[in-house]
Amino acid sequence: MESKLGAAILGATGTVGQRLIALLEGHPWFEVASLAASDRSAGKRFADACTWLLPTPMPARIADMRVEPLAPELAGDFALSSLPGDIARQTEQAFAAAGYPVVTNSSAFRMDPDVPILIPEVNHSHLESIAQQRAKRWSGFIVTNPNCSAAALTVALAPIYQAFGLRRVLVSTMQAVSGAGYPGVPSLAILDNIVPHIDGESPKVESEPAKMLGRWGREDGFSFAPIAISAMVHRVPTIDGHMEAISLETERAASPADVRRVLEEFVPPAELAGLPSLPAKTFHCFDDPARPQTRLDRDLGNGMTVSVGPISICPVLGIKFRILGHNTMRGAAGAALLNAELLRRQGLLKRQ
Amino acid sequence: MESKLGAAILGATGTVGQRLIALLEGHPWFEVASLAASDRSAGKRFADACTWLLPTPMPARIADMRVEPLAPELAGDFALSSLPGDIARQTEQAFAAAGYPVVTNSSAFRMDPDVPILIPEVNHSHLESIAQQRAKRWSGFIVTNPNCSAAALTVALAPIYQAFGLRRVLVSTMQAVSGAGYPGVPSLAILDNIVPHIDGESPKVESEPAKMLGRWGREDGFSFAPIAISAMVHRVPTIDGHMEAISLETERAASPADVRRVLEEFVPPAELAGLPSLPAKTFHCFDDPARPQTRLDRDLGNGMTVSVGPISICPVLGIKFRILGHNTMRGAAGAALLNAELLRRQGLLKRQ
Amino acid sequence: MESKLGAAILGATGTVGQRLIALLEGHPWFEVASLAASDRSAGKRFADACTWLLPTPMPARIADMRVEPLAPELAGDFALSSLPGDIARQTEQAFAAAGYPVVTNSSAFRMDPDVPILIPEVNHSHLESIAQQRAKRWSGFIVTNPNCSAAALTVALAPIYQAFGLRRVLVSTMQAVSGAGYPGVPSLAILDNIVPHIDGESPKVESEPAKMLGRWGREDGFSFAPIAISAMVHRVPTIDGHMEAISLETERAASPADVRRVLEEFVPPAELAGLPSLPAKTFHCFDDPARPQTRLDRDLGNGMTVSVGPISICPVLGIKFRILGHNTMRGAAGAALLNAELLRRQGLLKRQ
Amino acid sequence: MESKLGAAILGATGTVGQRLIALLEGHPWFEVASLAASDRSAGKRFADACTWLLPTPMPARIADMRVEPLAPELAGDFALSSLPGDIARQTEQAFAAAGYPVVTNSSAFRMDPDVPILIPEVNHSHLESIAQQRAKRWSGFIVTNPNCSAAALTVALAPIYQAFGLRRVLVSTMQAVSGAGYPGVPSLAILDNIVPHIDGESPKVESEPAKMLGRWGREDGFSFAPIAISAMVHRVPTIDGHMEAISLETERAASPADVRRVLEEFVPPAELAGLPSLPAKTFHCFDDPARPQTRLDRDLGNGMTVSVGPISICPVLGIKFRILGHNTMRGAAGAALLNAELLRRQGLLKRQ
Repeated sequence: MESKLGAAILGATGTVGQRLIALLEGHPWFEVASLAASDRSAGKRFADACTWLLPTPMPARIADMRVEPLAPELAGDFALSSLPGDIARQTEQAFAAAGYPVVTNSSAFRMDPDVPILIPEVNHSHLESIAQQRAKRWSGFIVTNPNCSAAALTVALAPIYQAFGLRRVLVSTMQAVSGAGYPGVPSLAILDNIVPHIDGESPKVESEPAKMLGRWGREDGFSFAPIAISAMVHRVPTIDGHMEAISLETERAASPADVRRVLEEFVPPAELAGLPSLPAKTFHCFDDPARPQTRLDRDLGNGMTVSVGPISICPVLGIKFRILGHNTMRGAAGAALLNAELLRRQGLLKRQ
Repeated sequence: MESKLGAAILGATGTVGQRLIALLEGHPWFEVASLAASDRSAGKRFADACTWLLPTPMPARIADMRVEPLAPELAGDFALSSLPGDIARQTEQAFAAAGYPVVTNSSAFRMDPDVPILIPEVNHSHLESIAQQRAKRWSGFIVTNPNCSAAALTVALAPIYQAFGLRRVLVSTMQAVSGAGYPGVPSLAILDNIVPHIDGESPKVESEPAKMLGRWGREDGFSFAPIAISAMVHRVPTIDGHMEAISLETERAASPADVRRVLEEFVPPAELAGLPSLPAKTFHCFDDPARPQTRLDRDLGNGMTVSVGPISICPVLGIKFRILGHNTMRGAAGAALLNAELLRRQGLLKRQ
Repeated sequence: MESKLGAAILGATGTVGQRLIALLEGHPWFEVASLAASDRSAGKRFADACTWLLPTPMPARIADMRVEPLAPELAGDFALSSLPGDIARQTEQAFAAAGYPVVTNSSAFRMDPDVPILIPEVNHSHLESIAQQRAKRWSGFIVTNPNCSAAALTVALAPIYQAFGLRRVLVSTMQAVSGAGYPGVPSLAILDNIVPHIDGESPKVESEPAKMLGRWGREDGFSFAPIAISAMVHRVPTIDGHMEAISLETERAASPADVRRVLEEFVPPAELAGLPSLPAKTFHCFDDPARPQTRLDRDLGNGMTVSVGPISICPVLGIKFRILGHNTMRGAAGAALLNAELLRRQGLLKRQ
Repeated sequence: MESKLGAAILGATGTVGQRLIALLEGHPWFEVASLAASDRSAGKRFADACTWLLPTPMPARIADMRVEPLAPELAGDFALSSLPGDIARQTEQAFAAAGYPVVTNSSAFRMDPDVPILIPEVNHSHLESIAQQRAKRWSGFIVTNPNCSAAALTVALAPIYQAFGLRRVLVSTMQAVSGAGYPGVPSLAILDNIVPHIDGESPKVESEPAKMLGRWGREDGFSFAPIAISAMVHRVPTIDGHMEAISLETERAASPADVRRVLEEFVPPAELAGLPSLPAKTFHCFDDPARPQTRLDRDLGNGMTVSVGPISICPVLGIKFRILGHNTMRGAAGAALLNAELLRRQGLLKRQ
């Protein structure tokens, strides 16, 4: 058996960093090589620097590791990043320049013209863009995964877009508090409450799917799919799992049964077969009108399956349904990890 | 000073019945004349029959009253009903036949061709339909108020429809558990959870506004406003207050500022001036993108004001914004009471 | 390999029944032989009769099984019961009379003079009492597990009682809603709320530990341990996991460090080695004063480990600390299953 | 009518500061004279500096006021402080030295030998200690109110101590998140969770009641009441209202009925008659074993009434019962305001 590749975890003490650490525990291909975080944490023992919030215990080996500063001299074959927006851009750039493959959950580079927002089941061919990054910008490269709400949304839209085309999509999200990290949302702000706003979220949900559903061309870069998306986002008092109420208008006629069929019959591209984080089922389609439910269904497929409620006729746009995606798995840590797995399969996860 | 009119409370032990009792305590025009409920409760002292759930204490006089059966021989000048669907139709019909004005929160008669769904600020002229009820059906009459989500929605849509016309409306609701009464939603079903379904709710939200925004003609009955409405409803872990995310397409061009202006400048019809339950402001328009919030804003105007978030451009339908309405006030008990007040003002609240 | 023993699940549609079904899925020694429930459910397909509330999907084989009536003619080598109090006594009696070993989570028989309340780690010798049941009452037998709060409490008290004796124990519980089953606690009753009462609960918590910590003698039956226990119980808005704040007075002097040591060093009796539901650690002792926490620690040891907070000096009784136990695992389904496992090991799990 | 006294609000942007501002709106004796807060807020318009969290709107006049630095040159006849621990001591000292009466909710000075912890219904004679402050320390003075859990506890213990003496008290608290201020408790830390720890809380609950129930002597200062108190504190997912489960041992024999009687018949000292914040009833005693409940009962007496559940026999200490107190009213803002009212009545609320 090949030896495991080492991951440098950037932003290790955050909620997504913790998920990454938990997921790498026992991962067949990867292992934690180093942990890095902001100056406040650097230098401390990980167990002392981190408010561990997962129901599974902190791995003992990790607890004793030293948190290192965010400088591109970390041990590891690649970087797994979930840095907060303000420091992500500068840090990830430094790592790419130093030759690291950077697989990141941060939004900093998502809209850059040569950086892919990758969901392996949706747009694995976008990985071609990293050759251009290497040619023009740095010896390493940066691959992002989408915003936590855009992730499940795009997974669900992709087969529909492929089959019927898409003109317009309206989505209203009900997002769990873990999406805001820790300390994140104050309890006084969310107990017995709904907050109709999340900073910077709507623009991401409205723009990222169009990039992911678009095309990469060596000459022209990314061309966006011509879909109008309108998002209204809400923070709700749930721990994990983003519910999304979707209405959409297809290009070509499609009945609810048609839409159901393309989701039900979706098979990930052959290139992905056997990736450790690929769920057995991309979609779980419910017949029960009261499903999916956040608490009951978020963990399906270890949080990587997208749950889909019954599809019905929308009197305004044509088709409507709900989806549920686990925000720190399909929408963050699991997404980044699946991206790293695809990169390794393609032989790209090597530090230059 | 005129003596107060007596209300027979049908469904007195339920959550809306309790609100009605609390609102009538100290009401300038009305008082509780009798309390009635299903067979399970009839015959008991009210305090023994009712799980009182309001933070204000049960009025002492009410506690000692006897709960009577739902037969149309109750003391009172009119009936205030909030009966559950299954027994509402038969019971309210019996009361109307016995000459009672029936002001009801139940859905049983809302879609009958001669029964108005009344929101005084929106369609007070629909009260003309009760003459036809009396001519053709019974000596009393029935006036309904809308479904709790349709109520706030229609209050908000009315001035926009009036000013710009409306073609299409998409609404995603986040509804509090009190809307399901008591015991209602099990805690195991809603803690850390979102449930994307409420029995029978979507069709009401999709159809009632069009009836309320339509016209009553003596010859033709109700003609519905030609608006396509699509609703996706969700139960969320909040106590009171329904949040609604709305996207809409107007008939005539309207900017967010235009829409804001017609809501801000809305003045209820002169006929309503001085009704005790009419709030000082029909709308409270927020500039803060993080408002309205369920817990913070539901009690504005004693729960009768509809809160409106910032209006913005919807890339799909043109206009989008959130509203928040108190479901057991603007959406139930307060709505029924305001209807009764308008009826009294018009001299209609008399038992035949 | 021996073939598996079949369990007849009594009360299969309830929350504890569901847990039992989930635990038996893939159990090395047992399998579901039949499902039974009250008349309301009997005759239906299990999937139609049951509101499945676990985050793991209902096993497919189980979904298609028919729910049978609660008559002692069910397939299975033994009965696993979690019937509600009102029907438990009569039903379990009938099964014992028909020769079934009945392993039950119900409270009906717990205080009977020849029925053990069993926690294998605490009082496995109490199983001797079933010989007397067989001699005097029926060809089968009944073994109960304790009340959900009494369970974790007694596990924690046992080593302390053993080492230092116990005079007095005060316990204040904070109990999750799953303890009340489904529909159970209404959401309106518990959101943003604490309820200082659970029907019939305090007497169980105050009496069951003394029976379990007492002795069984063939002549005298059970003699209770002479410990005064005072319980104040509270329902709190958590899903699973009962937190308990304990103060106690030992017979012989014991420092916090002494108490910690006996818990830390506790080893289950050799007879239990290898029982499939026995957790690797009976106790998990925390140093962090902010632990255990309900959501973070309830799943330790698959819900069978009892979490213990730092032990400190109680200025009133001497020793104080918190424990956390998973109420539907250590306090119900897991407890019953562990009891059944011990019975099988001892060759007692045979229908007569 | 006398003109109103002006209050300088120290810590105006915090949750207790906000409550104070709301309570002073329309107060018959006092009004807001100035608003002060930490450097981060100083200089800003109040509306811009403060995340207003009350369901009643921010008063318009207050919104436009400028937040001033915490220097003892503020407009106002006295200071009402709710500063966080770290800056309270230094700031309040400076205000007292500058001649202000300082009425504070902060803990900084509570244990000082010449500073009273005041609950007017309990120990108004302790105000004599401020003469000594003035003689020895500063021209102004400092009067504190107790910790939020100690407040309701001491109100309840006082008549029992008076009537029967008290030897030992055990209390387990279930405290709302508003007690931690804003942002305070992260939602990820408390949704579906109980946290058995609040920094620095237990020592306050264990020591403050003994000081309040003790005596002030000009010569000897405060002598503490000889009561052993043991507290276990818990943070729970409720917004407002601290529930406390109390067991106690009296000096002289007392039945549950005796204890109930002294609480029921308690009448505040005549000196307090007519103080605007004094509730009509100091105690509300429930017969229902399921009361008090946090959400239903916290607002009794505008949050100043202490709710008391049924008193019963504790098999360990003799007497047990629950109390519920509103933590930001009886436990903070309302407490400070009542203290200020008593001081004004006694002619002490004058800046030197």
